[in-house]
Amino acid sequence: MNKGMLIVVSAPSGCGKDTVLAELFKINEGVAYSVSATSRAMREGEIDGVSYHFCTKEQFEKMIENNEVIEYTNYCGNYYGTLKATVNDLMEKGKDVILKIEVEGAMNVKKMYPDSVLIFILPPSMKELERRLRKRGTETEEVIAQRLSQARNELSCASKYDYFVVNGELSKAVEDLNTIILAQRMKRERNIQLLDEIIES
Amino acid sequence: MNKGMLIVVSAPSGCGKDTVLAELFKINEGVAYSVSATSRAMREGEIDGVSYHFCTKEQFEKMIENNEVIEYTNYCGNYYGTLKATVNDLMEKGKDVILKIEVEGAMNVKKMYPDSVLIFILPPSMKELERRLRKRGTETEEVIAQRLSQARNELSCASKYDYFVVNGELSKAVEDLNTIILAQRMKRERNIQLLDEIIES
Repeated sequence: MNKGMLIVVSAPSGCGKDTVLAELFKINEGVAYSVSATSRAMREGEIDGVSYHFCTKEQFEKMIENNEVIEYTNYCGNYYGTLKATVNDLMEKGKDVILKIEVEGAMNVKKMYPDSVLIFILPPSMKELERRLRKRGTETEEVIAQRLSQARNELSCASKYDYFVVNGELSKAVEDLNTIILAQRMKRERNIQLLDEIIES
Repeated sequence: MNKGMLIVVSAPSGCGKDTVLAELFKINEGVAYSVSATSRAMREGEIDGVSYHFCTKEQFEKMIENNEVIEYTNYCGNYYGTLKATVNDLMEKGKDVILKIEVEGAMNVKKMYPDSVLIFILPPSMKELERRLRKRGTETEEVIAQRLSQARNELSCASKYDYFVVNGELSKAVEDLNTIILAQRMKRERNIQLLDEIIES
């Protein structure tokens, strides 16, 4: 069995990243989410190891110190992050692990896992992104302007990613993302053992 | 419009390379064959610029001298090769150019076009390759043994290619090859202009 790979997916808010990924999981059984770790308290209905890996603030900080956390943020005094152990376990089981993270975290992942594949989901245009943010109807003009400005910042980092997927039409974006993952599975470095087996067969 | 890319496809004899490519051309309109140049005489029914680019031996040698030939072989005293001009013209028109060439030529292409994508078509096993060679019923035992030995040599060079496609089932191999090409079209380096356009939109 081949070891799985690490796939980082980033996108500005409003690009439909969550929907694209939800659809991807329906059609590609080889991919898996990495369950995040958090130091926030468990809420009713949440399950440890499924919703999050729950731990104390001290435990989380200890893991950061020991370089066991791939990337993390602190939100409202609570830590949220991705554990090396979680990712490595899934990859050992042959799963391709999807990390849905911000640009900064993505760059750290690439440093720790040079073979990881970085995919950026783009809006078809800034105009369309604005239309989508407005359509939600929940944000004030100020927040929309802020989101657009942030999106521009994030897009300027997209040039550090390996692949771009434009989310114009949802089904096409899902297919494109899946195509990248399927192609990556055929890369030489993931199939040297297969080649040896064929030569020796 | 994006410039096209250069795709090199190699495979040992009996791996079904020609059939896979013929099927690929039916489903992917973005790819194009590069018409080879040759110094052999034109045969009845052949069309210059379609069957081959016909030229004299002297013209071909002049082009080799001037570094205008990407790769070539001499077979029965006649030159056969791929011209830079043909490939570049197609790429300028946005076509992804497929070169069906031997391992040695492939390495030269990679040197001249570092962005080219090298794909190796593998047999599912040596046993299956032998079965296919035998099934043709046209080759002597000696020729079959020779072909298998040559295939082993070629396979040992496959580790220098970017991607492997296993031709076990034809339709799967065609789909896999197409998947690689479609994914390559989404690579960052081919879409920097698109990113700029979106940011400025």
